[in-house]
Amino acid sequence: MTVGQSVRYIDAKERITGQIEYVLNMELPGMLYAKVLRSPFPHARIVEIDTSEAEKLPGVFTILTGADLLNDPEVRARFGPVYRDQGIVAVDKARFVGDAVAAVAAIDLDTAEEALDLIYVEYEELPAVFTPDEALAPGAALVHEKVMRRETSFADIILRAEDGSNIGNHFKLRKGDVEIGFAEADHIFEDTFSTPASQHVTMEPHVCVAQVDNSKNVTCWTSTQTPYIVRAQLAETFKAPQSQVRVIVPTLGGGYGAKTYPKIEPLTAMLAYKSGRPVKLTLTRAEDLISITKHAATIRMKTGIKADGTIVAREVESYWNAGAYADISPRLIKNGGYASPGPYKIPHVKVDSYAVYTNLPPAGAFRGYGVAQGAWAYETQMDMMAERLGIEPLEFRMKNFIGKGDTFATGEVVHEPMFSTLTQASADWIGWGKSSTPSNGSKRRGKGVTCIIKGTVTPSTSAALMRLNPDGSCTVLTSTVEMGQGSKTVFTQMIGEAFGLPPEKIKIVDPDTDITPYDLTTSSSRSTFSMGTALMMAGEDAKQQLRQAASDLLEAAPEDLEVVDGLVQVKGSPERSLTLAQVISKGRLGTVYGNGTFTTKGGIDPETGQGIASVHWHQAAAAAEVEVDIETGKVDILRLQTSLYTGKTINPINAELQSEGSVIFGQGKAVLEEMLYDNGQMINANLADYMVPSFLDVPADLGVALFEDHSPDAEAHGIGETTLPPVPPAIGNAIYNAVGVRLQHLPITPEKVLRALREKEQNKAETAS
Amino acid sequence: MTVGQSVRYIDAKERITGQIEYVLNMELPGMLYAKVLRSPFPHARIVEIDTSEAEKLPGVFTILTGADLLNDPEVRARFGPVYRDQGIVAVDKARFVGDAVAAVAAIDLDTAEEALDLIYVEYEELPAVFTPDEALAPGAALVHEKVMRRETSFADIILRAEDGSNIGNHFKLRKGDVEIGFAEADHIFEDTFSTPASQHVTMEPHVCVAQVDNSKNVTCWTSTQTPYIVRAQLAETFKAPQSQVRVIVPTLGGGYGAKTYPKIEPLTAMLAYKSGRPVKLTLTRAEDLISITKHAATIRMKTGIKADGTIVAREVESYWNAGAYADISPRLIKNGGYASPGPYKIPHVKVDSYAVYTNLPPAGAFRGYGVAQGAWAYETQMDMMAERLGIEPLEFRMKNFIGKGDTFATGEVVHEPMFSTLTQASADWIGWGKSSTPSNGSKRRGKGVTCIIKGTVTPSTSAALMRLNPDGSCTVLTSTVEMGQGSKTVFTQMIGEAFGLPPEKIKIVDPDTDITPYDLTTSSSRSTFSMGTALMMAGEDAKQQLRQAASDLLEAAPEDLEVVDGLVQVKGSPERSLTLAQVISKGRLGTVYGNGTFTTKGGIDPETGQGIASVHWHQAAAAAEVEVDIETGKVDILRLQTSLYTGKTINPINAELQSEGSVIFGQGKAVLEEMLYDNGQMINANLADYMVPSFLDVPADLGVALFEDHSPDAEAHGIGETTLPPVPPAIGNAIYNAVGVRLQHLPITPEKVLRALREKEQNKAETAS
Repeated sequence: MTVGQSVRYIDAKERITGQIEYVLNMELPGMLYAKVLRSPFPHARIVEIDTSEAEKLPGVFTILTGADLLNDPEVRARFGPVYRDQGIVAVDKARFVGDAVAAVAAIDLDTAEEALDLIYVEYEELPAVFTPDEALAPGAALVHEKVMRRETSFADIILRAEDGSNIGNHFKLRKGDVEIGFAEADHIFEDTFSTPASQHVTMEPHVCVAQVDNSKNVTCWTSTQTPYIVRAQLAETFKAPQSQVRVIVPTLGGGYGAKTYPKIEPLTAMLAYKSGRPVKLTLTRAEDLISITKHAATIRMKTGIKADGTIVAREVESYWNAGAYADISPRLIKNGGYASPGPYKIPHVKVDSYAVYTNLPPAGAFRGYGVAQGAWAYETQMDMMAERLGIEPLEFRMKNFIGKGDTFATGEVVHEPMFSTLTQASADWIGWGKSSTPSNGSKRRGKGVTCIIKGTVTPSTSAALMRLNPDGSCTVLTSTVEMGQGSKTVFTQMIGEAFGLPPEKIKIVDPDTDITPYDLTTSSSRSTFSMGTALMMAGEDAKQQLRQAASDLLEAAPEDLEVVDGLVQVKGSPERSLTLAQVISKGRLGTVYGNGTFTTKGGIDPETGQGIASVHWHQAAAAAEVEVDIETGKVDILRLQTSLYTGKTINPINAELQSEGSVIFGQGKAVLEEMLYDNGQMINANLADYMVPSFLDVPADLGVALFEDHSPDAEAHGIGETTLPPVPPAIGNAIYNAVGVRLQHLPITPEKVLRALREKEQNKAETAS
Repeated sequence: MTVGQSVRYIDAKERITGQIEYVLNMELPGMLYAKVLRSPFPHARIVEIDTSEAEKLPGVFTILTGADLLNDPEVRARFGPVYRDQGIVAVDKARFVGDAVAAVAAIDLDTAEEALDLIYVEYEELPAVFTPDEALAPGAALVHEKVMRRETSFADIILRAEDGSNIGNHFKLRKGDVEIGFAEADHIFEDTFSTPASQHVTMEPHVCVAQVDNSKNVTCWTSTQTPYIVRAQLAETFKAPQSQVRVIVPTLGGGYGAKTYPKIEPLTAMLAYKSGRPVKLTLTRAEDLISITKHAATIRMKTGIKADGTIVAREVESYWNAGAYADISPRLIKNGGYASPGPYKIPHVKVDSYAVYTNLPPAGAFRGYGVAQGAWAYETQMDMMAERLGIEPLEFRMKNFIGKGDTFATGEVVHEPMFSTLTQASADWIGWGKSSTPSNGSKRRGKGVTCIIKGTVTPSTSAALMRLNPDGSCTVLTSTVEMGQGSKTVFTQMIGEAFGLPPEKIKIVDPDTDITPYDLTTSSSRSTFSMGTALMMAGEDAKQQLRQAASDLLEAAPEDLEVVDGLVQVKGSPERSLTLAQVISKGRLGTVYGNGTFTTKGGIDPETGQGIASVHWHQAAAAAEVEVDIETGKVDILRLQTSLYTGKTINPINAELQSEGSVIFGQGKAVLEEMLYDNGQMINANLADYMVPSFLDVPADLGVALFEDHSPDAEAHGIGETTLPPVPPAIGNAIYNAVGVRLQHLPITPEKVLRALREKEQNKAETAS
């Protein structure tokens, strides 16, 4: 089993036979079940909570209210990675419909639910704001009266929030001088694009089991992508050292960003602390849908172009609906911000992106992390501008793509720019330039092509430990969360190749913060590269020790030894060799530990957005061919293809399948998914009304092409999220190409297409009349 | 919290409030409960097992028989650390009353028990042997027809077992030439001593929970002192790499050697494998008492002495009743063998010790590991010989103790010999030489004093990892099992001192073989020294990294920095310092790992027993004052004191309390404990009939004196077992001193005392008549 082979998931058998131990299935002796009382109002002061009736219900162990939190000096009432702005349950106000107001831990779920009905809450309704426009209007209701700053926060952002405003943060990027750029431009286009809130819809909802002993030793089994961040936040919650908090993370039933940063962990742990019993909290689908969302974003894009089609300036102003709590919004707008000028060489760039508090469910990380919203804007505008300028859109892109030596919006030279190659490949796949015949009279076909650039969190640190057991088998310890992306398989391949071990001799341990080494996060498409590199460093460390230990046994200098095929052998004399087990036992090593810590270098100036934003640039192109029924507005996606740059592919089939997943996510965002609210209440909070793509929706012709660096020192880039962002604009552009209607607001539902077609007909008629 | 302070157990609060998570209290979803069908015969061929009726019982999931094991090519039917001689359940014969013949896993314990009644077993009874005498008699029944050798075994012993004999092993030690020695001697004394089988009686019995998935990934939560050995044995059982087996060990409710090497783990895991469900097996007290015992031993001791009282030769022949399965007996007789000449400088020594299979419950490791049996013999004989020679017994010992530069039976020079000092101290404690007045007419008082030497397993390997978390708190990963000895407290003190951290910032993780580093065993009084040293090496490694990382930040060379009081600071300029958290976060280290592996050097020649048997020598003296009622035979222990050499004491109060525990164990062995058999059936298999000392039995005057090396490079020696072996002979010698009866067979019950007093009276009468 080596790197570059398309091997089956190492946990395939356990997955298929239902033997993966998800937190969802976990039970502990004496465990209580939790339910959460949620606000029916988008914005309301909590005047009084009377839990006395609920407390009398047999089987109720604990009821948690904001007052309990505020009255206990041993705990912190609020948590949050950037601001400490979210009550474990609401401590003063409810800020969105569904905000936790109280919570119950009871002997079973029925009792807990019954108890919720017996809790009396008196609310004082407050005016609410739902959009950035409303939130930023003069005199708007304030979601938070004060900025809830933490003692420490992320070093890579400046927090430009002020008391008395709903602005949660403001990110600025300044490259060159857009005023000069626009002055030099022959054409200036300004368009506004928007994307709605949507959800990750992980198969497994948020679920957590927690146990807290009377010394505040916290153990938390949770479905999280960020075990170390959850640990740090729980330590803060209980005012305890991190060493007292243990976060254990089995395989996740999906993450996609929904499970980054603490979500229900502080609440579950607090109920466990109060009750002295293990407590389990599982969100229902309706609760999960409003637990965290993708940001709705409105992006105004102003682009200056020379007569020859060269882009000279771009100004981006974007408003990100952060919802009621900051979560990671103040930081996400940095990534969404610097990525929004797109993969184009533009000398003058100005970006202002704003995270805006509203009375809606909180928004946070979502596969693509702010890039998809920007890509929707810039790749739609590229086609719009190409048409206005009378340039062929592919050619327009090719002219402006970042090439070798060109700089990105962050001022840095992009290494290995592949935008032209990828875009050409995707265009070729769908037969770009050739027209296709639709299936019947009311159908129209069209094609679209797009390209995007995406960064990965930089700098960041991953650490890995690997152990060779006395029998020569290997145990790998990392805090990378297996959430279906195949990290266990990839690491098995890497270690398998490095030591010549078969997969059954390699075990990948699930994250446990007491034990598995530090890792920043399983997100940002970073694990294969960052953790993989740390793991290879650990492997080298172990090999060094094996060579050292075998040196005496084989009577050769360590540097004359090599570790191959499960052996330590004298270079050039394979007959002089020992198995790993022999080296470990004869060398009395007990076990050999390899240790590796990998920190990427870089970071941007938080004032100007200039610097090294990403250790690698993730690059992907997409091409779509659609068929639009002009009688119904229905869009059939006939062909959907993405080309992406992997650097080096560890497992081609897994890379393709993971990318296909991203493409299908993109399809959902393009034509299906949108969280709909009525006065802050989500009105489609179930999977019949909120629709994710089913396998029947997936185009028959779905393609992913992997492009690699074939040099010997090629590095594995991240790929997990890369093929999502180019998909919605590719579909939008194809629809325009098919029927000539330009929809700037996602999703492109049949209703919107039909309405646009009718408006277009009306305009045509009006123009004609 | 530093080294040398008497601090409270760090887990005291959890212990007292019942929050320690013992395996005994563990439950898993879907877990089955196991019960074992046990042989009613000491030796019987299993002709047939019919499980059909039991299988029909609703709630029965799995029934395991020897045939199942033999018919499954995926598993090994037998296990064992030295020989693979023990069936997971019996595969051919039952070899003792209580041997596992079949096992059931069912929905609850009642069902499992009911199922046992429905299993029909046809036995063919075989002649049985119960003592080494019987087992070694010509034509004796064979417990094992063949020696069940493993592919690999312990490198430090020669296995001198042969087919067709009940000898499980024979250890030889040859120093000088005893024939010459005896020829030089003016007096030769030959006496035989014996000690019975007894039991550890851990508060928590053997208990195990196991889960095995369909890829044979084994997870085993078990109350074991040897997680890594259990892992290796389970890997063998399932013919799987060690990386597929995970052994997790929470705090134990006592070990004392009973929980070394696999016991019920293979059976529990096999039931889990067969049922596809988690399975829990908990032994009842009656089962636990026959699961593993201390060896009954008979020791013939022949000692040659010059006219001036100098010992010149000693020949020891000892027979160790190994019971039905070898367990660690073939190796224990090495330690028991080389230790049996005692702490005396004797130029000519010959030891032959034999492990002998019988049809009794298997014997294995027990606190003192073979030393107590030998000490009972040599320290009783010392007093007997002193009397015969007319030398004062303390003086006789002082004359012959190993002193500086003298060699032990193994030929090595004993470093830091403290025998004289310790023995004098103990003698002084009880007012040696002064007579005391008994409380009334039928009572007689007497005093005894003894001294012993004990080794620790050498060579051996321990590895430790320590981690500094981003907030500067520390997580310590070792595979040392916390079983009440206080290892977590000791390690907390060591790391606390090394880094200047308070105890609440230090977490000691429980063993988990996927995760915590390799350690040979938590036994042999080795953890504080071996693991402690590894941990300090890990600490140095971490400090080195901290100094390196802080070098840039503090603008000083790493060698000019020091880690003290939770800070990294410039030597001599404490104002130039950073907290550990600052160094970790500013240095972007994520977490700092320190790695340490410590292997002790040494080992004896398995042919001659000469070499380095022990990295340290554990030394203790005991003194007892007793009051014997000549009318009832009852022995009251008035004063019991031990003096021991600790090298360096980490936690004086803990060291004293642990040693007191050993002393009380010794008291039990001296006057109370004995497993009684009737045709192989234990007839006192409950704690009303098998009596361990209660707190009411403990002498009011119980003392432990710690002697230390006060040099700066002093090392912490192990102490856990050291004060047990000298206690029984001290009590025996005191009884002799009180009433003049010499009992050579433990325990010294009132009946035996009374009988001996009567015999003595009778002899006196006969002599007089």
